[in-house]
Amino acid sequence: MINQARLNGAFEHLREIGISQMLISDPLAIFYYTGKLMRSGERLLALYLNADGGNRLFLNKLMNCPEDLGVEKVWLDDADDAIAIVAAVTDHSRPLGVDKNLPARFLLPLMEKQAGSAFVNASIAIDRQRAVKDAAEQEAMVLSSQLNDAAMERFRALIHPGVTEREVAAQIPVIYKELGADRMEFGIVAFGANAADPHHRPDDTVLKEGDCVLLDVGALKDSYCSDMTRTFFFGTVSEKAREVYNIVRRANEEAEKAVKPGMRFCEIDRIARDIITEAGYGPNFTHRLGHSIGLCDHEYGDVSSVNEDVIRPGMTFSIEPGIYLPGEFGVRIEDLVLVTEDGCRILNDYSKELLLV
Amino acid sequence: MINQARLNGAFEHLREIGISQMLISDPLAIFYYTGKLMRSGERLLALYLNADGGNRLFLNKLMNCPEDLGVEKVWLDDADDAIAIVAAVTDHSRPLGVDKNLPARFLLPLMEKQAGSAFVNASIAIDRQRAVKDAAEQEAMVLSSQLNDAAMERFRALIHPGVTEREVAAQIPVIYKELGADRMEFGIVAFGANAADPHHRPDDTVLKEGDCVLLDVGALKDSYCSDMTRTFFFGTVSEKAREVYNIVRRANEEAEKAVKPGMRFCEIDRIARDIITEAGYGPNFTHRLGHSIGLCDHEYGDVSSVNEDVIRPGMTFSIEPGIYLPGEFGVRIEDLVLVTEDGCRILNDYSKELLLV
Repeated sequence: MINQARLNGAFEHLREIGISQMLISDPLAIFYYTGKLMRSGERLLALYLNADGGNRLFLNKLMNCPEDLGVEKVWLDDADDAIAIVAAVTDHSRPLGVDKNLPARFLLPLMEKQAGSAFVNASIAIDRQRAVKDAAEQEAMVLSSQLNDAAMERFRALIHPGVTEREVAAQIPVIYKELGADRMEFGIVAFGANAADPHHRPDDTVLKEGDCVLLDVGALKDSYCSDMTRTFFFGTVSEKAREVYNIVRRANEEAEKAVKPGMRFCEIDRIARDIITEAGYGPNFTHRLGHSIGLCDHEYGDVSSVNEDVIRPGMTFSIEPGIYLPGEFGVRIEDLVLVTEDGCRILNDYSKELLLV
Repeated sequence: MINQARLNGAFEHLREIGISQMLISDPLAIFYYTGKLMRSGERLLALYLNADGGNRLFLNKLMNCPEDLGVEKVWLDDADDAIAIVAAVTDHSRPLGVDKNLPARFLLPLMEKQAGSAFVNASIAIDRQRAVKDAAEQEAMVLSSQLNDAAMERFRALIHPGVTEREVAAQIPVIYKELGADRMEFGIVAFGANAADPHHRPDDTVLKEGDCVLLDVGALKDSYCSDMTRTFFFGTVSEKAREVYNIVRRANEEAEKAVKPGMRFCEIDRIARDIITEAGYGPNFTHRLGHSIGLCDHEYGDVSSVNEDVIRPGMTFSIEPGIYLPGEFGVRIEDLVLVTEDGCRILNDYSKELLLV
């Protein structure tokens, strides 16, 4: 059923960018407003919002949506000219906001039919709204990360002599399912030098004494996404690795301490980056500090040196500093945080002590 | 390495629609021309083709592409204005073809920078070329469907008293991997009344005596996709289900017999639809007869009542009539076919007899 508070919020955010009608095609945004997740493949699925009334949901007859969603449905057939049907509803005298991902095969004919007086990528309005989680979403984010904490304990128990990355990775979706997740979202397993590649894909590498074990894992629970990284060590840990671990941990913890409303994302990135740079590993921290998260793992708004946006209560994002030493090892420590009125709640409780497994 | 014959074909097809420059962003189309499959997430990845020379591949520094592809690469950085860099290469005095899936966040700024004198969805040229498989692709399609035949035999063996849809579905990717597929592409498992929903998602429904068991499965093998549906019955079959099965089978077989160069897609759809309609089940055949297939499961060109395109040798598509009786059961029988000089080769050998399991 359509969430009226969110719908009102959408119109407020659209008004701020001077848009009074918008066609939303992102399935997750449609879910955010209607509570109904549908995937349409190549077919048109779009929620049309009009500040003056006349909201519509355009969907194909092949989609399964018998329930009343509180918004008028327009059922499309494969034989219909879907764009003509949409253009018959839009106000041609005003600019039409469109989704950043609206494909050219829909956008160009909408333009040809002059469905709006101009066409504007208005996703920023929706993205800004979704960046601030409401109470129900905050609750879901908390539960999703609690599940991830429990999952990490199970993943850690998979680490034993002779195991390969692929064997560990194969258990991740199974364990998530057992713990009640909707599904695994991603699972990076990297041993030793493989952990120096931040996006390493699990392979047949066998675990060796002294290896770091980097686990970067996330799942959907009730449609909301978790994301946590821990780096363990197998058997022993070298002095260098211990030093690097402690630097990354300090960068993670100091950045998390600094998160509060009014700070800018770039300032948080800076705090972690300075700690790593001062320790001499600046060039080895090769990515942004974090990213927003919610219905999907990477949402609008990253914790990076170039994002000057101000942090607000209700935002959820990752804090994930790392140091990557090609040919040797890599360490990353990541939590999700939820911004509160005067600081942040760290959504992951899993220990950040240097743990030998 | 860029496939020169395919590239020449692209310019021929583009010439037919009056376009001399095009920006291709579909990763599968880029793979088709360059032999390199890359995914770019939210970042720009595009192959620019210009009939007068000056082809370029725009890609992000985060992508892994060290090899020479025979086309000049333009490396983009996250801090770059990617659209400005593309617009500096395109010919502003001529229409610019774009990909049907090019997202609004790229298309709208390209328009603002007047990267072309007009913007045209030119995917039809690429799609028409890709619809006719060359010799290497035909070979790959044959092998992919052979793998699917072997997989169906394994899937059928999973059907036993007490099993749930989800349990069967969980084995599908495992079996595909064991048989050497790149990966599962989709796997619909529907028991009994669930099979009346053509896009049912596997759930915890337990198999019961007399249920139909609909399996609609496909995988990628060497990048080419398979897609087959069989409907079995568990233990017994009702008279009504047997009658429906035989109608669907006849629709499938008569349509396949009719496929040959020069026929129109809509004529093939009509043959199957007439059989089902004359048997009194017209309203229960709720979708098109089939779809083209190749590097992905749904490619340009469907076997539907509205597609008047002419069938040509080298095309590959599905023939998948179905009858869906809500609350009771559903039957669908699907093969892939490859159009030959004087008919078609049915790529699936799996039995279409009514089988009890």
